[in-house]
Formats: sequence, structure tokens, C-alpha cells
Amino acid sequence: MFVAMRASASEVEILGVKSRILAEGLTPYDHRGSGGTVIAVVGDVAARRGALMDMLAGLAGVERVTPISRPFKLTSREFHPEDTVVHVLDTAIGDGSLAIMAGPCSVESRAQLLETADSVAASGATVLRGGAFKPRTSPYSFQGLGVEALRYLAEARDRTGLPVITEAMEPAQVDIVAEYADILQIGARNMQNYSLLNAAGRVARPVMLKRGFGATLEELLMAAEYIVAAGNPNVLLCERGIRTFEASTRNTMDLSAVPVLHQLTHLPVVVDPSHATGKRRLVPPLAMGGVAVGADGVMVEVHPDPDSALSDPEQQLDLVEFEQLAAALRPIHDQVRAYPGARP
Amino acid sequence: MFVAMRASASEVEILGVKSRILAEGLTPYDHRGSGGTVIAVVGDVAARRGALMDMLAGLAGVERVTPISRPFKLTSREFHPEDTVVHVLDTAIGDGSLAIMAGPCSVESRAQLLETADSVAASGATVLRGGAFKPRTSPYSFQGLGVEALRYLAEARDRTGLPVITEAMEPAQVDIVAEYADILQIGARNMQNYSLLNAAGRVARPVMLKRGFGATLEELLMAAEYIVAAGNPNVLLCERGIRTFEASTRNTMDLSAVPVLHQLTHLPVVVDPSHATGKRRLVPPLAMGGVAVGADGVMVEVHPDPDSALSDPEQQLDLVEFEQLAAALRPIHDQVRAYPGARP
Amino acid sequence: MFVAMRASASEVEILGVKSRILAEGLTPYDHRGSGGTVIAVVGDVAARRGALMDMLAGLAGVERVTPISRPFKLTSREFHPEDTVVHVLDTAIGDGSLAIMAGPCSVESRAQLLETADSVAASGATVLRGGAFKPRTSPYSFQGLGVEALRYLAEARDRTGLPVITEAMEPAQVDIVAEYADILQIGARNMQNYSLLNAAGRVARPVMLKRGFGATLEELLMAAEYIVAAGNPNVLLCERGIRTFEASTRNTMDLSAVPVLHQLTHLPVVVDPSHATGKRRLVPPLAMGGVAVGADGVMVEVHPDPDSALSDPEQQLDLVEFEQLAAALRPIHDQVRAYPGARP
Amino acid sequence: MFVAMRASASEVEILGVKSRILAEGLTPYDHRGSGGTVIAVVGDVAARRGALMDMLAGLAGVERVTPISRPFKLTSREFHPEDTVVHVLDTAIGDGSLAIMAGPCSVESRAQLLETADSVAASGATVLRGGAFKPRTSPYSFQGLGVEALRYLAEARDRTGLPVITEAMEPAQVDIVAEYADILQIGARNMQNYSLLNAAGRVARPVMLKRGFGATLEELLMAAEYIVAAGNPNVLLCERGIRTFEASTRNTMDLSAVPVLHQLTHLPVVVDPSHATGKRRLVPPLAMGGVAVGADGVMVEVHPDPDSALSDPEQQLDLVEFEQLAAALRPIHDQVRAYPGARP
Repeated sequence: MFVAMRASASEVEILGVKSRILAEGLTPYDHRGSGGTVIAVVGDVAARRGALMDMLAGLAGVERVTPISRPFKLTSREFHPEDTVVHVLDTAIGDGSLAIMAGPCSVESRAQLLETADSVAASGATVLRGGAFKPRTSPYSFQGLGVEALRYLAEARDRTGLPVITEAMEPAQVDIVAEYADILQIGARNMQNYSLLNAAGRVARPVMLKRGFGATLEELLMAAEYIVAAGNPNVLLCERGIRTFEASTRNTMDLSAVPVLHQLTHLPVVVDPSHATGKRRLVPPLAMGGVAVGADGVMVEVHPDPDSALSDPEQQLDLVEFEQLAAALRPIHDQVRAYPGARP
Repeated sequence: MFVAMRASASEVEILGVKSRILAEGLTPYDHRGSGGTVIAVVGDVAARRGALMDMLAGLAGVERVTPISRPFKLTSREFHPEDTVVHVLDTAIGDGSLAIMAGPCSVESRAQLLETADSVAASGATVLRGGAFKPRTSPYSFQGLGVEALRYLAEARDRTGLPVITEAMEPAQVDIVAEYADILQIGARNMQNYSLLNAAGRVARPVMLKRGFGATLEELLMAAEYIVAAGNPNVLLCERGIRTFEASTRNTMDLSAVPVLHQLTHLPVVVDPSHATGKRRLVPPLAMGGVAVGADGVMVEVHPDPDSALSDPEQQLDLVEFEQLAAALRPIHDQVRAYPGARP
Repeated sequence: MFVAMRASASEVEILGVKSRILAEGLTPYDHRGSGGTVIAVVGDVAARRGALMDMLAGLAGVERVTPISRPFKLTSREFHPEDTVVHVLDTAIGDGSLAIMAGPCSVESRAQLLETADSVAASGATVLRGGAFKPRTSPYSFQGLGVEALRYLAEARDRTGLPVITEAMEPAQVDIVAEYADILQIGARNMQNYSLLNAAGRVARPVMLKRGFGATLEELLMAAEYIVAAGNPNVLLCERGIRTFEASTRNTMDLSAVPVLHQLTHLPVVVDPSHATGKRRLVPPLAMGGVAVGADGVMVEVHPDPDSALSDPEQQLDLVEFEQLAAALRPIHDQVRAYPGARP
Repeated sequence: MFVAMRASASEVEILGVKSRILAEGLTPYDHRGSGGTVIAVVGDVAARRGALMDMLAGLAGVERVTPISRPFKLTSREFHPEDTVVHVLDTAIGDGSLAIMAGPCSVESRAQLLETADSVAASGATVLRGGAFKPRTSPYSFQGLGVEALRYLAEARDRTGLPVITEAMEPAQVDIVAEYADILQIGARNMQNYSLLNAAGRVARPVMLKRGFGATLEELLMAAEYIVAAGNPNVLLCERGIRTFEASTRNTMDLSAVPVLHQLTHLPVVVDPSHATGKRRLVPPLAMGGVAVGADGVMVEVHPDPDSALSDPEQQLDLVEFEQLAAALRPIHDQVRAYPGARP
């Protein structure tokens, strides 16, 4: 349930409400927005909902107590009406600008990464991506360069000024990834790896959570709720395609997810056409489509020589293709921002 | 198999090849494109492919005989490399312009239709849509005004100059719909109604074929093949959402279908965000997304007073919302057309 | 809404209620079961539900008026609590026995059909199947022998005593199929071909309606509702697989559909493992699985020489395989019938 | 690739081949079956496949070298033609008997667990299940009793003699779960949690791996490959429903998965109708269906008082319902075993 405090409520009154919630064995989370302070009450309230609402409504400074119908709470628009803006180094995601995340599927060598980083930075990327630890369907596939790759990523960040995003695959990797990278990624296959979500919730880095290819949007938000409830409010959501019967693309990119998520949650939404389609030729149109439906960012795999890539060679753009694409995305983004009522 | 004729081949040589194909009990279809004449050989060739290819390769004027790997032939880019342009009244679809089809889900009255037609025409629609015969999941739902609606549609066309599209639900309706309307629509539930496809293949009207919500793109093209093989080359394809496990939208709009279809076929592709999402608020972003992935047209349901509509009230835009949307679509379309290699 | 008449209600009282419903512009359907007579009221009642219920409740002989929450009415268990039993020639489907429908995918010749019919009859089949008109994804595939096949089917019925089931693909075929066959089949691709459903609703033959591969169970029941509302109560439902992301079988056979349908409807349920799996080796286990979940019948494709079949060669059993399977199905069916509470 | 040794090959020859494979930087795995010894060669062979095959074919004792087309190797029937039999305490799974795993969704108290254990043991269960660590979609739901539950499970095992299965959710839990339980379970949401798969591959307990609800069968086998390649050959596979558009059940139980898996792999296959359907009433028919398609085991949730259960109350059977079901499953299993060619 949500407790909306009066605009005039004092800090002492806010503290009083939070203390009372704690005394009931529940957890309070407060959000101080332009519309005033809202306190979410989290825990097992089902059996005593009515009594609890009456009690809280009677406390000093309380304007209104409302039940929550959705299973996600801290990630919901109801709790936090303003868009979350994630700041990282000199850039921001979710503030109305368009984030462009680009880089190789896997970091394969220092030279490959630095060449890519320099090029995508010049072409307008705002974040550098690159896989260090790679989740692979087969135990016999290339599993990434690991810590060595993290060092190259940090070097590339220092050269270009771009913040770096890379994936952590297990709780034990979270600290080392956080040491080198600026944004942690949790992959689609780990979307419901609760130990990893909890670990990511305790680290001082933004986290980009990718939707599982078999997951509903509600489940994506419940997974994000684990991270936020554990203490990390800087979560980005990423749509990367879902499984359907259609076989002409690797997955079916669900672009309606973008406006639906914007309605349900305050967290920024990024689209990943490279993994969704699995086909290089389809990446530009679907990146443009993602921007047109209102995404806050686009993640694209870029490689200096895609045909020689050690992972996903079929879906990576080359440096020139990326330059053309980045140039095409910004005017579409401007059009969309100008649309009346583009965002909730 | 395809028989490519030499650029210098004479009409007599072309006729000679076609006669020989007929003499083998097979059917020849010829396409005269900028790259020369290609003759598709259709029928049961499996058992004698090799002998047939050798025989045809030896005929006068033949440059090359190639087998076809895809099950669709006349609808394939291999047979017909240039984009098909469908001309109807003063407008064209597939010529690089953006077709905007708008109008009510169902024609409910003369006044409702004419008010909508006048408004969408002023806002930039290029085709007027309106349901006369309505396929309904329940036998007890409103089934449309039928022929009365066809008369109103014809009147609206005469007032506005916009060509009219409406659905025919069974072979017996094809003639009457063709008498009043300019484009016939075949609905998603009838995508594999072969009798209806054959009937639509024999009528002198363009046909817009909607993808079944459980159909693959290859099946959509095979269904279009029925229409083309029956003699009607003017087919538009329409993506209107597929069934997935995601429940936040009625269907999942498969926007990757647009660039995939453009690669596989020469037929124009239209997107229908109204039926795909089933939610008014999602129509504008997904219409923009559809244009951004390269669609040749967008179909949108518009009603003067959506809340009072007799069918699909939740998904129809009002007249002002449509005006705003139409204005936003054209600049995005211009951006996409300017993208290098936007079309195959 | 449903009007339950008192057990003591007279024919005059029943007639009185039905007349009053007609006078309101609605349609009454009555069901006389062991629990008394129930009259379903069909039509547009939304706006006047309350007033209508009050008025009907006051008529002579009426015990109770209840609203209906489900969109299907005549096919629902609420309206018709007893299982529907479909009688055809000397056999019955839905009476607790196990129907076994067997025969070739397509009737290819008189000899092929008669050999198959004699063999499956000896092995315990209770219905003979065989395709005369074939719906084919490609316009260039074998489309069936048509009326010639119907004649062979009738001859096979006369020899073996087995009733014959075959598909009608369009309204214009319904009469000719009904002339020769004992049960009409409507295929998965035509599940929402409303003209065909209406035509099948007006013919004096049982109809087996196959679930579309993209259709929900509720949609299947709404399609069956078209047939029953048009006047034909003898409908069999058939589960034949749905589309999912799993690619190891042609479709995913949804065996939970059988107990779910038994709960929702009184109509018998048949399973078709041949089309669901598309693989001969998987037909026996899934036929056994279908019987184990409680199906009233199983349909299996059988061919004297599957490898030479003109359609679906990979999924047809040979005559010996069918004999073994039929022998295995009956004891499983007996086990299931003995289970406490096997049926609602 | 697979190296098949001659029946007469000596240990020295086998060792020679394995050493040579190691010297190439690859990993050999040998299987000694009734058809002789086969050595799987695992690693990155793509670029030198031909040379490697020639070299290995020339070694002493080698009969034949064959490439592998499938991405899974150690879990494939090609490598290991005989069924894997998993022995645990006094029972065996995969030996032709029917394993029946039963117990509560969550262990809620000592009394609840012991009452259930005694009852299901008397009714014929062969394995006791019970959740100690619970993966929950919401961070605010009951997360299980943890180690306390493990102690109760061990006590129940000591009373009843039934081996105990319970889930480990992260690598750090594997050791403690292995200390108390006899079989480790990896849940559907963790199917591609590679750290957990590796940890489970290094523990001396059989592992039951549940199919992700969005995973293909090939991906399930690749995940099992991680466990086997890490050193643990005792893996059970579990089908528990996949996501589809059908909403009448929680998931769609894919019973064709059972015979398909039996063809592809030597590992035993268990079905879980409780999680697949999410509805108590559907559990018995789908458990019978699972046995009828040839499953080696069935897992069923059982609770002394389902309506008061702390998790999944809608899908647990009570003690009497389980007794009836267990009695019904064995005769169906006997029928299926008697079917000619029931297993590959």
C-alpha cells in the first residue's frame, strides 16, 4: 500500500509514519517527488489490510492511504510518477535524450576494442558496450576474456570518456565487474536469477536488466523490483525479443513493450535489435523502430570486422554501418519527442 | 523453376518457351522487368526437374534456368525484383510514398461515416477504411450493416476522392464488395480460406491480405501466392500482430515482419497497429514504429466518438488524435526513405 | 442469460416463456435435460439485463433466471450439464466408449482406400477418415480427388459399416460432402470461417471442428457456438496442436485442452496426434497420452504404404502399426474410465 | 566428434587415443557401453575437423571416427545409446520402473512435512519432494524455511526410507543442499544459470533439471550438457510446461517432449503436471497423460490441507487424491511398457 503525505508534512511526521510501519514488521520505502512524499509499505499485509490502512490514515501528516493492485510497487508509476533519470559519468539516460550503446558482442582483443570504441564515440555513441563474461548456450563455446576484457573496457572508457556497460553472470562476479565498469548488465537468461538480482541491488552502479525471452513485462518489472528493493534505484530495462512461432528472426522484437513499460514504470527503457533479430540487415530498421516507439536508448553490436567475430558474427554492424545508423536515429528521436503526449 | 530470357529475346521466342511449358502440362507466368523477362514454371516438376531444366535451357532466347528453393514463387523477389506498385484511383501504394488508411472499425451510419471520411481526408489519409461485413468471434455480436454500409462507403469515396477498402468474408461476397469498394480486404481469420483467396484472385480490384495471428510470414506469402496465381497481381500484405504469451497487448505486433517481407517479396507491406495492440494509447507509437521500420502504409481505426463505437471502442482514435498522428508520420517516413539502403 | 424452468413446468408455460423472449427481439434455445428444462436467451441484452431478468423471473413456471458470464452459451456445461452423445450409424461418440477414427490423409485411389478401410476396420477403428478436398498451404500442391474420393469413401462405408468423416472446405461443398459422408470435418485453418460454420450448422450431419493452431479454447467454443446456434447440436471438438516456439514437433499438442474442454463444454473431444506432431514415431505415444487425459476419441492417419503417400508421408502409420496402437489404446481407456471423478 | 574403439581395443589403446586428444588441446570423454567404448572429443575443432578425423582414425584400436551434428554431445543417444539409470538410496529412475515424486510445494513445518511424507510413502511414492529455498517471482512472497526445511526433509527420509529431492537456487547453496538431500533440483528459471549448472556438475548427487518455460528441448539438453561435462552424469530432465498464448492453464504441458527427449538423449525424463497446469483438477489427467507418453517419472505436489498452503494452494493434491492417482498410474505404466518399441 502507498501512504501519500501532505505537502505540508514535516520530516518528523514522515519519520513517524516510517517508524510505525517498521513497528508493524513491514518495510517502508519513501519517494520524494514533485507531488510530495509517498511511502510504500512492503511486506505481508494481506490479512490485515483494512486495519492497517485505517491506522496509517490516522497518523499525523498523512493525506491518503491507497492499496496497490499491481504486484510491483517501487518500480511502478503509481509510487514514482516522474521518470527515473540514470546519471553515469557525463551522460544521462531517461532524461529525454537518446542513449546509444554500441560496441562488440565480445571483447576479443585490446586492439579490436579500442578501434571500435574510438569509432563509435566519433559516430555519436553515448555508452560503450562489450562482453567480458559471456553466457553461452553451449559449454564448449567461447566464454569471453573475463577480467582481461574488463581492463580493456576501462582503458577504452578513459580514452573516449564513454561509460562502459558489461554483463555480470553470477553474484561472485558483481564486485569485480563493478570495479571496472560503469553500468552492470544482467542478461536475459539470468532475469530471474534472484541471487544475482539481490547482489546487483547492493552495488553502487546502475544496472541494465534484460527481459527474458520467455518473460512477460510484469515479470520483468518484478525482477527489477528485486534490485530496487535491495537498495539500487538506478535500473534500466531492456527489450531484446521474445520467443514466438515465427522463425524468420531469432526472436520477435516486442516493440509495444516500450510504450507499455513507460505507462507502468518510471524506469528508462532500452531496445536491443541486435539480439532480437540476430540478423545484421534487420538491425537498422528495428533500431529506428525502437526509437520511433519511444525508447530511451538503443543498444547495437558493432565490430570492426563482423565476419571474423568470435561470437554472433551475423548480427554485428561494421563501423560505417553504425555511423550511418547513429546519424539516422537522432532526427527520428526528435520527431517522437515533439509528438503531443509522447510520454505519460 | 525460373527461365530467364536473354535481353535480346524476341516475343516469338518468349511465346515459344511458354508454349513448351504448357505442352509439358505446366503453367508459365511471365514477368517483364527492367532486368528482362523471367518466366516462372509452376506445377508438379519434382520428379523431372533435371530433364526439364536441360530441355528449357536449350530453347531459343533462353539465357538461364534456375530452380526455386522457396515454396512461394510469383510473390518472391527472385521472380519479380522490382517493388510492386498498386495504383488505385489517384493514389499509389508501394511507390515510395506513405499510404495512410483510416476510418471506422465498422460503418455504423451514413452520418458517422461521412463525418469521419471528411475529417481523415483533411488530415492526410490516402485511403478510407470501414467495415461493412464484420467477422465476429461471437455469433451474437454486431455483424455489420452489410450492403447498406457499402453504399455509404461509395458515397464517401465520391465526396472525398479517397479510394475505399473494406472486407469480404466469403467468396459469395466478393462480387458485391468489388462493385462498391476499390480495395478488397481479406481478414486475418480468413488468411487460409482458400476458396476466398481464389475468388479474390479473379476480381479486378487490389486485395489487402492480413496475416493470420497464428501464421508465419512464409504462410502469409503462400496465401498471397493463391491470389496472384489466380490472376490478380495487386496484393498488399498487412501485419496486424501475432499471438504470444505476452498479455499486456491483444497481440504482439511483429515489426520485424516489415523488413523481412521487403526482402522476400515485391509486394507492399502495410501495418495495422489498431488491431495489433487493441489499445488506443498504443496506436500512435506503434504507427510511428511501423513507419520507421519501413512500412509502405499504415492502417488506423478512427471514429468521431470512440467510446460509443459498436465494435472495438478501446482501439479507435478520435478525429483530433488521428490528425496529430498523420502529421507525425510523414516526417518519420521521409527520414526512413533517406536512409542508405532502406529497401532491398 | 439462462431461464431454468420448474420441474413441474408445463409445455404451455415453456412455450409462454419462449414466446415472450421472441417478443423481446431475442432468440430462445431450450435444453431438456435430466435436471429439467433450461432456456438460453441469446441476443443483445447488455443494456436491459436487469429489467429482462426481473420480467422473465415473474413468468409462470420459471424457477430461476441466471446471467451467463461466459461468451459461449449453448456449448457450455452450464446450459447443458450432461455430456452430448453423437450417434452416427451404429456407433456413438461421447457415450463413454473410445472412438478411433483412422484412414489415409488423402484418398489417392479406390484400391488404396479400400485396402486401408478393410484393415483399420479389422483392427478396431470405429470411424473411417479420408481427405477428398484438401486444404493445402501451397496452391501448387495436390488438392485431393474431390467428388471421386467421396464416392470411394461411400463405397468403403458400405463394405465395412464404418461411418465416414471427411472435410468440407467451403460453404458450396457442404451439401455434396453431406450427401456422401456421415460426419463433416471443418479444418483448423477454417475454424473461424464463419460462412462455413453457418453452412455446417444447417446440415443434418455431425460436424467435427478442429481447433485452429493459433486459437484459444474459448475461441474454439465460440466457433462451435456458431454451428450449434445455427441449428446443429452434434458437434465434436478436435485438438490437433498449437503453435509454439518449440521446433522439434510440427505443433505442440495441448493435451491439457481435453480436461479443460470437458469442464467447459458438454461436447465430445477428439485428439489428432498425426497432425499435431507431424512425425510417425510420435503418433503412438501421443495417441496413448490423449486417451490417458480423457479424450472421447482419437484420429490417426493410416496408409498402406506411408512412404509413397501423396500428402503428409512422414506422419501416417502403416497398417500393422495402427493395429498395434488400436490394441494398446483400449486398456488405457478402461483405466481412465475407472478413475474416480474422471469426468465432471 | 566421436571415436568408436574396436571391441578388441585394449586399455592401452584407449588411453593412447585419449592422450592424443588431450595433446591437441581438446577434452576426451569416454563411454563404455555394451556396444564398446566411444570417446567424445570436445572443444574447438571446427577449423581442423578433417585433419583431426584423419589423424584419430589412424590410431591403434580405432574403428571409426564420426562427426557430431548436434550441439549436445555427452547427453546424446549417439554417444551413449543405453538409457541412463540413476540410482539413489534403494530406488532407481530410468530402469523401466515408474518413479513417483510427491510432497508439498514448500516445507512449511515439521508436522506438515512428516504427515505428508508418511502418507505419500504409504500410497506408493518413491521419492519425497519439498521446497526449502523457494524461487519467487515477487521479492515480497514467502521465500521458504531454508536450512530448517532441509533438516525436516532429512528426518522424513530417515523415517520413510524415501530419497529426498529439493531445489538449490544458487551456487552457494549447492553444498548445503547436497549435505541433506539425495537429489538436487534446478528450477525452470535457473535452467540457463551457468554458474549453478557448473556447481551442480561437481557435486556427488543426482540433479533434476527443469525445462525453462521459454526453452526449447535442444536448450534443455545443452544445459544438461553443462552438468555432465562438469563431471556429473546423473541428470534427470523434467518437463513442466511452456509458455504459449493459451490462457486456460498456467503453462502448456508439452507432452510430446517426452518421446522426443527419449529419442535424443539417454537421460531419464520426469513430468511435473502440478506446475504445468497450476490447477489441482488438471493434475490427475495430465499425470496419467505423462505416464502414457512414456515418462520415467511423475512429480506431484501434495499437501495435507491444500487450501491453507503458503505457496501454490491451487495446484496441490490432498493426501487422498494422491493415493487415488498413484494407484491409477501404475497400470497405465504397465500398458505403456508392453507396447512394441515403446523406447528407442
